[in-house]
Amino acid sequence: MNPDTWLLLCRTVRFGDTDAAGVMHVPQLLHWCHEAYEESLERFGIPPADIFPGPGVCLEVALPIVHCNADFLRPLVCGDPLAIALEPRRLNPGCFEVSYRFSSDGAPAATALTRHLAISSQERVRRELPASINRWLEASSLQGGVKPL
Amino acid sequence: MNPDTWLLLCRTVRFGDTDAAGVMHVPQLLHWCHEAYEESLERFGIPPADIFPGPGVCLEVALPIVHCNADFLRPLVCGDPLAIALEPRRLNPGCFEVSYRFSSDGAPAATALTRHLAISSQERVRRELPASINRWLEASSLQGGVKPL
Amino acid sequence: MNPDTWLLLCRTVRFGDTDAAGVMHVPQLLHWCHEAYEESLERFGIPPADIFPGPGVCLEVALPIVHCNADFLRPLVCGDPLAIALEPRRLNPGCFEVSYRFSSDGAPAATALTRHLAISSQERVRRELPASINRWLEASSLQGGVKPL
Amino acid sequence: MNPDTWLLLCRTVRFGDTDAAGVMHVPQLLHWCHEAYEESLERFGIPPADIFPGPGVCLEVALPIVHCNADFLRPLVCGDPLAIALEPRRLNPGCFEVSYRFSSDGAPAATALTRHLAISSQERVRRELPASINRWLEASSLQGGVKPL
Repeated sequence: MNPDTWLLLCRTVRFGDTDAAGVMHVPQLLHWCHEAYEESLERFGIPPADIFPGPGVCLEVALPIVHCNADFLRPLVCGDPLAIALEPRRLNPGCFEVSYRFSSDGAPAATALTRHLAISSQERVRRELPASINRWLEASSLQGGVKPL
Repeated sequence: MNPDTWLLLCRTVRFGDTDAAGVMHVPQLLHWCHEAYEESLERFGIPPADIFPGPGVCLEVALPIVHCNADFLRPLVCGDPLAIALEPRRLNPGCFEVSYRFSSDGAPAATALTRHLAISSQERVRRELPASINRWLEASSLQGGVKPL
Repeated sequence: MNPDTWLLLCRTVRFGDTDAAGVMHVPQLLHWCHEAYEESLERFGIPPADIFPGPGVCLEVALPIVHCNADFLRPLVCGDPLAIALEPRRLNPGCFEVSYRFSSDGAPAATALTRHLAISSQERVRRELPASINRWLEASSLQGGVKPL
Repeated sequence: MNPDTWLLLCRTVRFGDTDAAGVMHVPQLLHWCHEAYEESLERFGIPPADIFPGPGVCLEVALPIVHCNADFLRPLVCGDPLAIALEPRRLNPGCFEVSYRFSSDGAPAATALTRHLAISSQERVRRELPASINRWLEASSLQGGVKPL
């Protein structure tokens, strides 16, 4: 499988992503990160219902974000095309990170990172990562990162 | 209890509510409606956990919105103070509506409506409204509407 | 040009679109409508910068939404694929509507409508629709609607 | 002026802030940070229109966020009351940071930070901070931080 199919994603800046300064409203970047993470898992072949709960469904293991950060390099305006390069990596048997590099028309626009911890949904104590997430992390680490653009 | 405490609410237009046209982004109004509905129930004395599910909790009855509409009368910009007048009314034993009138500095700014249906959370078939919602609807109907500002 | 390229769009329900009831949070549908409207214009060949202002740019004509409504037919959960069929129509020389039909796996999920008025950005008085919007409305009306699914 | 009036703010977790895991959706925290920053300035006496542009208005100096980070300590559910303690500090004549500590019922829930750079809105080159922001930073630094509940 070509890693570009799950580690290099595309989207467009939409009007609702902007604020009255005319550029992307900062918290929106974190929404894009989470959607890119979801799309990456789905393209790799992991059904959303395996990782994300639905109505009345409580999965055994949850993967909440415990830390995030982001750096903003240039303004993004409505209509800008975005390439999003993901770099997931396991930190330990119960924890992983995803790095995100956003670029537009070949120029770096922002970077971000989310750190996820495996916990039991009920007791909220530490668990091991689900097998499907481990497969995604291993396959991703073999690629050594993709080049955006 | 003074109905103004649960049927006339206040908020301020924030920067993230606007888009690059410099005014409130339209879908934001529906977020404000839902937050006003939640705040109204809470001020009336209904604990949020009685109506809105939490993690791993599935309430017997859900009250999903089945219809909404909104009319926009004037632009709203960052910093504008808003008064939100709610008018809840029961349509039948399993259904109610909430009308919302938004005004800023005494001038009407928008109106909106949400219609909610009582269903069982699991089978998603019609149910009667919860007793607490009926109390809120009855107390609200006795007021004959509040005047914003 | 095949109208499906600009009047039938696709997206996926993402985790951030849901609330603690496990289904799409209602105001999110209006965000999807606006993004579908933007994507439709872009696919038809209208550059976003012609219609949507950017930083420090004030377009002569704005097209604010003056009315919207939506009906919700079934719950949508994280991972659900969506087909969005748009039906734009001119109401008069300064006003148009867009109808949206959302379906998932062939089943109708929601309908919505947004009504847009052409005004001058500065004085906020009525204007005629921009020529590019008229071309999009005319080309769309020739199709007689597309079938979702 | 009592610093608590501008450095210790309150809000409630609303249903639309949650996702299908039943807890606050992570990007929402950054929305809360930005709204707390806006409310703090407003309470201190700085009119929103001095700092945040409106329709067709381009301020001379913009204060975009160039970095943000957040740590999540415990889940937040619909209805949770939040206290938000802000600690703004100047880093140099053209740059400041705001630290945010979120607590609920006396228990720490999350921390976050936003770093803002003063630039000219048009050329996007570095500028000095506006005088009103300097007054807010100085008055805030005299307090040595507030204790959230």
